[in-house]
Amino acid sequence: MTEPTVELGKVGFIGSGVMGRSMALNVMSAGYPLVVHTRTPSKAADVLQAGASWAPTIADAVADADFVVSIVGFPSDVREVYLAPDGVLAHARPGAVAIDMTTSEPALAQEIAAAAGARGIEALDAPVSGGDVGARDGTLSIMVGGSADAFAAALPLLESMGRTIVLQGPAGSGQHTKMCNQIVIASNMMGVMEALAYARHAGLDPRTVLESIGAGAAGSWSLSNLYPRVVDGDYGPGFFVEHFLKDIHIALAEADAMGLELNGLELAEEMYSQVVELGGARQGTQALYRAIDPDAP
Amino acid sequence: MTEPTVELGKVGFIGSGVMGRSMALNVMSAGYPLVVHTRTPSKAADVLQAGASWAPTIADAVADADFVVSIVGFPSDVREVYLAPDGVLAHARPGAVAIDMTTSEPALAQEIAAAAGARGIEALDAPVSGGDVGARDGTLSIMVGGSADAFAAALPLLESMGRTIVLQGPAGSGQHTKMCNQIVIASNMMGVMEALAYARHAGLDPRTVLESIGAGAAGSWSLSNLYPRVVDGDYGPGFFVEHFLKDIHIALAEADAMGLELNGLELAEEMYSQVVELGGARQGTQALYRAIDPDAP
Repeated sequence: MTEPTVELGKVGFIGSGVMGRSMALNVMSAGYPLVVHTRTPSKAADVLQAGASWAPTIADAVADADFVVSIVGFPSDVREVYLAPDGVLAHARPGAVAIDMTTSEPALAQEIAAAAGARGIEALDAPVSGGDVGARDGTLSIMVGGSADAFAAALPLLESMGRTIVLQGPAGSGQHTKMCNQIVIASNMMGVMEALAYARHAGLDPRTVLESIGAGAAGSWSLSNLYPRVVDGDYGPGFFVEHFLKDIHIALAEADAMGLELNGLELAEEMYSQVVELGGARQGTQALYRAIDPDAP
Repeated sequence: MTEPTVELGKVGFIGSGVMGRSMALNVMSAGYPLVVHTRTPSKAADVLQAGASWAPTIADAVADADFVVSIVGFPSDVREVYLAPDGVLAHARPGAVAIDMTTSEPALAQEIAAAAGARGIEALDAPVSGGDVGARDGTLSIMVGGSADAFAAALPLLESMGRTIVLQGPAGSGQHTKMCNQIVIASNMMGVMEALAYARHAGLDPRTVLESIGAGAAGSWSLSNLYPRVVDGDYGPGFFVEHFLKDIHIALAEADAMGLELNGLELAEEMYSQVVELGGARQGTQALYRAIDPDAP
């Protein structure tokens, strides 16, 4: 039996950071024709080598695209990529589905969705969790906000990049869900790193402690994966402190707007700001340890 | 082939709370003869029904015992049970191994070990993690402080109660390890419950959010097990807020003595104290939610 040939939509891909590169490669492996645009063309080398076309402008990347996928740095980048006169919404064609996978502001996602709708374009906010490894292996969790129709249209494409793909609600809901993810991680990291500092100062062997506490009620992804890195003296990223701080600032502003005081998250913000003052902006989030243990290397 | 008959040591068991009862029953199921003493005899009913002997005093429980096992409430109870004139150390026989499984103060564990050693008794501090379910199923994590010889002698007995049994170092090290466990949990609970409050105020469905964030970098035992209880409006224990606060106070005092400032743990202490003020002392630790969400039921 032969499978019927399905023609996959064309993808305009914007961004080629560590995450974006891996995600673009997975989209191409699934058979989607892909045009890539990025501010730093050299970073797209492996995507181009894998057969992507180069677009010198956003307009070139999106004019003919059925799907636009973007994963860039900060909300200001997202705003420019989508809403500037030479941006996605000015040049994508009606009926296209534009998917921003940057972790960004829920209100901006809503603004983009409204502006997109006015031009007959569907927009989804679809930030991810799972890090560089998840992006490479196509096992990301993708948290989606937008209409059910746009979600259904984008799902096969999203499945080429992730494993857990959930529509959370209307525009902005993907970003809000990602904020929940980061809120959990922020305080959990404090607990994990405070426990490590305590273990060391109490004269315990931190590895032996992990044998006792790793699999029970204290168990978490951060404890199993990031505590051992600090034990090994490894502050390398993983996920940059400065990007995590960006997310924390978004979550704090949103919570404030909801009339919600998140004291744990506020404390994490202070401690991660200390890590930046110590020179750790481009270290991994486990460098929080440096703000806790006065004897930290 | 017949197994050689091994005569198992006699166990004097002190305490019959929720944890102690299940642990005593597992010790008896493994074939150990057991004598039980407790302040509230009615609570020992099922242990007695399973074949244990009743001891009206601590002296009666421990005089003939090869192993003493205690799991009582607060450090003051541990002090009285072990160091009072009518306590364990005054009446246990030389060569016995006395195992306190209460979560208590590391310094007290060291004091008991020294006093025990002066009488030829071996002492272990061996607090547990895993809750009522772990106690019932014999799957506790048991964190042990004391000598390697005493640990080796007690290991088969401990194996009747737990699954992960690790010698962490000299006297007090079991208690210090348990403090590490509680330090991780304290801040993690803040993150989990703040995320739930955020999700609700953002208009998300908390169950759908959990689908997205439960299995990735935000994943933890608390997120998978206690977040859903709050979603269901269930603040029942589990583990009492007042007992968790006891543990947090011990950990804060120890950290202070080490010159270590644990800001996350201090914040958790404030928030759990608020839960007590709200009447939640005998609710489960997930009642932390009440200190976070002004709209909490």
